[in-house]
Amino acid sequence: MAYDLYYWPMIPGRGEYPRLVLEAAEAPYRDVARLPESDGGGMAAMTAFLEGERGALIPFAPPFLVDDDIVIVQAAEISAYVGERHGLAPLTEPERHFARSIALTTADLVAETHDVHHPLGAGLYYEDQKPEAKRRAEGFRNERMPKFLGWYEQLLERNPECDAYLVGDGLSHADLGLFQTVEGLTYAFPKRMQTLMTDYPKVAALRDRVADHPPVAAYLKSERRMAFNEDGIFRHYPELDAA
Amino acid sequence: MAYDLYYWPMIPGRGEYPRLVLEAAEAPYRDVARLPESDGGGMAAMTAFLEGERGALIPFAPPFLVDDDIVIVQAAEISAYVGERHGLAPLTEPERHFARSIALTTADLVAETHDVHHPLGAGLYYEDQKPEAKRRAEGFRNERMPKFLGWYEQLLERNPECDAYLVGDGLSHADLGLFQTVEGLTYAFPKRMQTLMTDYPKVAALRDRVADHPPVAAYLKSERRMAFNEDGIFRHYPELDAA
Repeated sequence: MAYDLYYWPMIPGRGEYPRLVLEAAEAPYRDVARLPESDGGGMAAMTAFLEGERGALIPFAPPFLVDDDIVIVQAAEISAYVGERHGLAPLTEPERHFARSIALTTADLVAETHDVHHPLGAGLYYEDQKPEAKRRAEGFRNERMPKFLGWYEQLLERNPECDAYLVGDGLSHADLGLFQTVEGLTYAFPKRMQTLMTDYPKVAALRDRVADHPPVAAYLKSERRMAFNEDGIFRHYPELDAA
Repeated sequence: MAYDLYYWPMIPGRGEYPRLVLEAAEAPYRDVARLPESDGGGMAAMTAFLEGERGALIPFAPPFLVDDDIVIVQAAEISAYVGERHGLAPLTEPERHFARSIALTTADLVAETHDVHHPLGAGLYYEDQKPEAKRRAEGFRNERMPKFLGWYEQLLERNPECDAYLVGDGLSHADLGLFQTVEGLTYAFPKRMQTLMTDYPKVAALRDRVADHPPVAAYLKSERRMAFNEDGIFRHYPELDAA
């Protein structure tokens, strides 16, 4: 049976993390909220779950994945679940666990990236918190971005199996999560990323390696791949960027 | 072999989530950074891991748990790992996964609670972002707190096994995480919680049920249980609270 992935239909956001794993795994899935209502899709299908009309396992928020009677919530958890079932996770137990730890840390980075343009909370528009966003962006660009990127670079340098992947000797959901995050940061902070990425050659090489992975390459060229936009997590506001 | 838990020694913070699961499970563990350096503990032992001196599985940040050659990072992931090994997780696969999803959602709430007093980022002192914290606190108290607490209440109401636990028919790491979060929110926002909690009787009852669980009750009375304080995640700043 195909997986059912649920996420907001108009933004890549956090939904893109599990979507990328499903695509890289060539796993059968329905992107439910992006399907027509006549096919049982659309926002109505997603809302039904969130309002408890589809059972007692009620997600707090999308993304969530439904696999028969299993409901998995949270981008990193879905990515690990799919990755572990489809050869996109390391095989040894310590590495398998560590891939999960990396994916969850990436989820923290994604949340911090969101907070840059919404430091006072998601309940206010960006336009109502621009000065605060500028202040938060400074620390994010100068301290947090190098701290996270430096950590990924170190994991690649230190991976005893091979420096081509974050953990283990093959592509995993953790690598796919880093790819999407580098793409998002490059969209949101192009000046800063241009300066920074020269310090992280292995992260840059991993980004290219993921983009060239045949199922990912085919997906990125397809209509299923959504462009980043200013309703999502990674937003390009030039006033928040600097080299 | 005993588990080794690593977390900042002076605050309950995110470390308290896995610590509580270890205590509730009566699992043998060392709280490494709180041990004397002469016993191989202290901050030096934690820093060695974070700086990559203890192997290639390098955590981005505490808390992390070391179990022989396994390194698990992130509070919710450690809690699930320990819970699943020690009878503090549901037995069916859908419920087991859902307990993880709940724990990760609780971790999001914890991160949001932290951001209330640090909306412009963790790199600045609270004193340098007080007006912004006040603005963020308003949305947190009025929108986010009821949204999260209402969701937990709904899970308890809808649990087909029994309304005493969030998922399944027994105490799980997800319940322990909610307990700690209710304790933290009550410490940080006593006025708001006094008003709010009358709407969530099942959450309140679960909080009491966890506190009365014998190993938890013994732990809460012990010196191992740290008090909340204004260096941690849950901070009581009266100016951020309101009924």
